[in-house]
Amino acid sequence: MKFQLTATDPRSWARAGTLQTDHGEIQTPIFMPVGTAGSVKAIHQRELEHDIQAQIILGNTYHLYLRPGTEILEKAGGLHKFNGWNKPILTDSGGYQVYSLAENRKIVEEGVTFKSHIDGSKHHFTPESVMDIQRTIGADIIMAFDECTPYPCEYRYAKSSMGLTHQWLKRCVERIRTTEPKYGYEQVLFPIVQGSVFKDLREESATFIASQDQPGNAIGGLSVGEPHEDMYAMTSLVCSILPKEKPRYLMGVGTPENILECIALGIDMFDCVLPTRNARNGMLFTTEGIINIRNEKWKSDFSPIDAALGGYASTFYSRAYLRHLVINKEILGAQIASIHNLTFYLWLVKEARQQIIAGTFASWKEMMVKKVSRRL
Amino acid sequence: MKFQLTATDPRSWARAGTLQTDHGEIQTPIFMPVGTAGSVKAIHQRELEHDIQAQIILGNTYHLYLRPGTEILEKAGGLHKFNGWNKPILTDSGGYQVYSLAENRKIVEEGVTFKSHIDGSKHHFTPESVMDIQRTIGADIIMAFDECTPYPCEYRYAKSSMGLTHQWLKRCVERIRTTEPKYGYEQVLFPIVQGSVFKDLREESATFIASQDQPGNAIGGLSVGEPHEDMYAMTSLVCSILPKEKPRYLMGVGTPENILECIALGIDMFDCVLPTRNARNGMLFTTEGIINIRNEKWKSDFSPIDAALGGYASTFYSRAYLRHLVINKEILGAQIASIHNLTFYLWLVKEARQQIIAGTFASWKEMMVKKVSRRL
Ligand SMILES: [Zn+2]
Ligand SMILES: [Zn+2]
Repeated sequence: MKFQLTATDPRSWARAGTLQTDHGEIQTPIFMPVGTAGSVKAIHQRELEHDIQAQIILGNTYHLYLRPGTEILEKAGGLHKFNGWNKPILTDSGGYQVYSLAENRKIVEEGVTFKSHIDGSKHHFTPESVMDIQRTIGADIIMAFDECTPYPCEYRYAKSSMGLTHQWLKRCVERIRTTEPKYGYEQVLFPIVQGSVFKDLREESATFIASQDQPGNAIGGLSVGEPHEDMYAMTSLVCSILPKEKPRYLMGVGTPENILECIALGIDMFDCVLPTRNARNGMLFTTEGIINIRNEKWKSDFSPIDAALGGYASTFYSRAYLRHLVINKEILGAQIASIHNLTFYLWLVKEARQQIIAGTFASWKEMMVKKVSRRL
Repeated sequence: MKFQLTATDPRSWARAGTLQTDHGEIQTPIFMPVGTAGSVKAIHQRELEHDIQAQIILGNTYHLYLRPGTEILEKAGGLHKFNGWNKPILTDSGGYQVYSLAENRKIVEEGVTFKSHIDGSKHHFTPESVMDIQRTIGADIIMAFDECTPYPCEYRYAKSSMGLTHQWLKRCVERIRTTEPKYGYEQVLFPIVQGSVFKDLREESATFIASQDQPGNAIGGLSVGEPHEDMYAMTSLVCSILPKEKPRYLMGVGTPENILECIALGIDMFDCVLPTRNARNGMLFTTEGIINIRNEKWKSDFSPIDAALGGYASTFYSRAYLRHLVINKEILGAQIASIHNLTFYLWLVKEARQQIIAGTFASWKEMMVKKVSRRL
């Protein structure tokens, strides 16, 4: 995997780059749609590629491990073959879902025991097994198995949890080093910085993570309920420590505003369920601001959802029609809103990239943050 | 509206024809996907047009009247403008839903009073108001307001209900005759033959309906639970009475087998929720037979859903992947299965049409009925 910086913004820490994988090139900054169980909810694969123009998607190891399971994924030849998405895939480690979805979880140094939220069956994850599972899923980018601390979190707990994450990381690195790619293409490991909202822990963690010298680095444990100021402060601090020549991935972030602010702090990669989850509830992110399509005011608005954004879903369908579909719980409503929101997110990061390359990012960002966060 | 017969099968009553509407031509026999509330569930309009190659869709007056309501549809300029479907639309009369979904319904000669299944609000339908509503929805083909008798049904009730349907029909005809098309294009009325499974009533009704000399005729009150033999016997009898030079629409039918058999009896138009509703439950109609995709046996079947059928959804996605999606209740599962099933239905009637034109329909039908009704 090769990462090349194309441009850096003179007035912020924003960067434009290119990440080369065996499944193709990713232009950064990039947003990765979340394909939980091997499907980006309500979206066809060809829509992901041609309408949304996604360059990489994320798969959830916890979900894919439970269903369809690694046996079927291995028989299929990996997730790319299974779901027909032939561009890069990043998988999370499953840790976050084990902590938030699974039952009866028990964390010890060796690993985590938990019960499936689907059928109550008992399972055991270790750093080693999670590396193997992600190799079998067929991720191009494998995430380290970590503990993601909740917010708020006691300093003492955050510190010991970070220690565990670092211990586990060594085992992840060793496992990846001593095993082969599963399907012939490169599979790289991204370690994850933890440390909650504590500066000294984040510093210590970022320094340790950087020292592992992996092809990319991630920041976890943010966007879990802390004030935005804390999120930005931690991101900024960590970015100042992580190596410039490697991609930086801020996990689980966020709103369009969050993304623009964190691009300015030096982040290259993002993922979040927000655009798809909110779409299903009728919340739209547009080039002019945020729309709650369920609102009475859109009832007779026969104008396109977002003419300026372009693309099939956003220009073919009207606000009034989408409102009607969402209120009637028609599946097509979720489909249209999901395509629209993801198209917007991908447009936003592409536009940010162009502004960085043009050297105009900082002022554009100020203007855009206001625009995209106002409610219409 | 002009209907032209292109070919008739020498060994059955099957016909191939062309129905011209102001929204374009319909090649018969045809299947009409059901777009309940202005959306064919889980299907984008461009998929309906390009993948499924639907030529006409059906809208439910009851649903559209309740939501979004005629006021919004009128402001939009009709359903075509509202949902972006620019080919022909047929609307049912709403009667069937009033009888099956609404509460507190009371039928008198003047019309029907009922309470909305959504919010309990009180409404009143008369033959006249239902014609006006369908004009406002913007249907190219308007269905008469009838009473659809349930099965089984006492002879006495069936007879008096048929009498009411005929009285109402006269009022529908008069209303259509004395009102103008709402949006500039032609809107025609199809009357509906009733009479349950009683030969003499069906004969009387078909004779009366034929005498109204409308541009097309429909058969209602079948596929409501009666044995297939009764459905075919009634359809055959009614087709022998209805004029040959006008299209015949068998309402609410049915399985691929039902459709092939009824094409052989002289039916030109069909609609049914079966392909989309069953799709959402994981039941697929394929060129080789019926598949319950939830079945364990498809778990590791990485072959396309239906390679012989062709088209994106049926060839891009594998059976194993679709099974995974349906079992996980992923929206994409409903989307893929719905596109597939409708593509199959439209392929089936198109194929039937070609066989009729080639003079080979009867033997092809015998073979196909066996093929499409077996369980894989
Ligand atoms: Zn998020
Ligand atoms: Zn039906």
